[in-house]
Amino acid sequence: MKALVVPAKKSLEKVCSPACRELLDKSFEVIYNESEKELTSEELAVKIQDADILLTTWGSPVLTGEALEAAKNLKYIGHAAGTLKNRIPDETFDRGIRVFSGAGRIARSVAEYCMAAVFVSLRNFKSCDRDIRTGDWAGAKSNGTGDELTGNTVGIISASSTAREFLQMLAPFGCTIKLYDPFLSAEAAADLGAQKAELDEVMACPIVSNHAPVLPSTKGMITRRRLSLIPDGGLFINSARAVLVDNDALYDELQSGRIRAVLDVFNREPLEGAELERLRGMDNTVLTPHIAGATHQEWQALMNCIVTDILHAIHGEKTHYEIPASRWEILA
Amino acid sequence: MKALVVPAKKSLEKVCSPACRELLDKSFEVIYNESEKELTSEELAVKIQDADILLTTWGSPVLTGEALEAAKNLKYIGHAAGTLKNRIPDETFDRGIRVFSGAGRIARSVAEYCMAAVFVSLRNFKSCDRDIRTGDWAGAKSNGTGDELTGNTVGIISASSTAREFLQMLAPFGCTIKLYDPFLSAEAAADLGAQKAELDEVMACPIVSNHAPVLPSTKGMITRRRLSLIPDGGLFINSARAVLVDNDALYDELQSGRIRAVLDVFNREPLEGAELERLRGMDNTVLTPHIAGATHQEWQALMNCIVTDILHAIHGEKTHYEIPASRWEILA
Repeated sequence: MKALVVPAKKSLEKVCSPACRELLDKSFEVIYNESEKELTSEELAVKIQDADILLTTWGSPVLTGEALEAAKNLKYIGHAAGTLKNRIPDETFDRGIRVFSGAGRIARSVAEYCMAAVFVSLRNFKSCDRDIRTGDWAGAKSNGTGDELTGNTVGIISASSTAREFLQMLAPFGCTIKLYDPFLSAEAAADLGAQKAELDEVMACPIVSNHAPVLPSTKGMITRRRLSLIPDGGLFINSARAVLVDNDALYDELQSGRIRAVLDVFNREPLEGAELERLRGMDNTVLTPHIAGATHQEWQALMNCIVTDILHAIHGEKTHYEIPASRWEILA
Repeated sequence: MKALVVPAKKSLEKVCSPACRELLDKSFEVIYNESEKELTSEELAVKIQDADILLTTWGSPVLTGEALEAAKNLKYIGHAAGTLKNRIPDETFDRGIRVFSGAGRIARSVAEYCMAAVFVSLRNFKSCDRDIRTGDWAGAKSNGTGDELTGNTVGIISASSTAREFLQMLAPFGCTIKLYDPFLSAEAAADLGAQKAELDEVMACPIVSNHAPVLPSTKGMITRRRLSLIPDGGLFINSARAVLVDNDALYDELQSGRIRAVLDVFNREPLEGAELERLRGMDNTVLTPHIAGATHQEWQALMNCIVTDILHAIHGEKTHYEIPASRWEILA
């Protein structure tokens, strides 16, 4: 089988371990992009013509409808990165091509980010560490008296892959977990250790974590009114997308000091200008530059997950990172 | 039964919820210290004479040998705080008095601190949050690409109550866990999800958390040589006691930038003078003022745990927070 490995040299090194490269070479007739430059969509449309397998990652060109048309042999697409939204045409699934993405692996990293976000906030590490360095031991001690996760109540918006990993990590803490997901039954929520709840109920939890996909129905869904439901001193975590939230309302809440937040996503990225100015001085926020899913271990694991899973598919075995056609519409 | 509640008004309010006060009043003939001042050991020796139960917390006077001698009716001691070391005479146990402490409850809070310490370090929240605020998105992004706990290797020094809670919290991450504790069999370590290991082997893990009790044999046990075993980029967490560690050697390692640390305990507390000067500018450390066990939930729960457990003992039921005479010698 012919595998077209699209990423330029540097991009490939990031996501493909030497062991994975060995696995690729052993398993397929591989066409690499040995150049320093990413292919254009047009170049991809030419190269893909006799490939059985297409492997891409961040920065790879979009697969156009024309390129898909030209790819007569294409059976598997593997994306060693997160979302495939707007990267492949919807017809891909109609053609019976099986599609794999690293979203499931990245979910683990993002879920760890959410755990980190919860703990760094509950224990006020930021102000505590700052005050102790100024010699204000007593102030740091008073700041540092934090809250516990054990027995706390956590609200989760959407039962995404990330949310499911997060729920596993929360298990030892005996939390009450309220989960909003219109596509999930009460039984399925219970199987995940959560209670199915309406969005308003989830927003009223002292810890709220957003994992919703971007869909016409979810854009701006976390409105000013809903943000006002978060209890005083509560924590809002956004590791999904900024467009889901009325950020102007969120920043108002944060400016008033009523709630706290850990934010990995912003209206405009890189965060700059008026939005940065607004957030810069806020002590009750922890800000990170869209890195919730970025860890060294994950990057090196990504292509390997995909290639291994495509081999599973070829051998008729169970797959872990495949996107079923049925879920394509509601995916992030 | 007569219960002597030693803490002054303010100290008591911190650790005793209204519900607990109700439970006390309902269960015993209670003598409170209604003053704003803590009792002296001498005052305690007088007040204790006909008490069946003695209840103390942080800041309460030490129970001297003479006071114990005078306390003819004493059957239960409950300390709504952590360690009882040097607070009660060893003869207490010979007299058949049953002793309870909040150490087991505090262990949960300290274990959460350790989880927080792991995550705040692995994800570099501190430098990431700082850089993004200066407008350096790219720098923050590079700093923010962190490490995962999932599949990592964690070294734990001593199977303390805290370590046992910590191990439960680590369970969902599929870590390899090496546990040093000379009082623990390989089977008991395996039951906790860990591998019994020598101290040197534990120190060679990329994440090392210290939970050792202060004993003649453990003071200074984490030597310069052992600290040098931590791999480059590794993390050392001390939420136990500073005296267990050659802190001069630790600070040398930190100053060189070779490893990172989260420290809640110091040679001198409050942290000040030369020790503070040395740590102040270090970017690879997170410093907190001996608050690993300090959470709002825990404080309010402490006296309640103790009183409930003493009632269990009185009714011949199973206790959770009792210190068995056999473990007194090796306790922190």
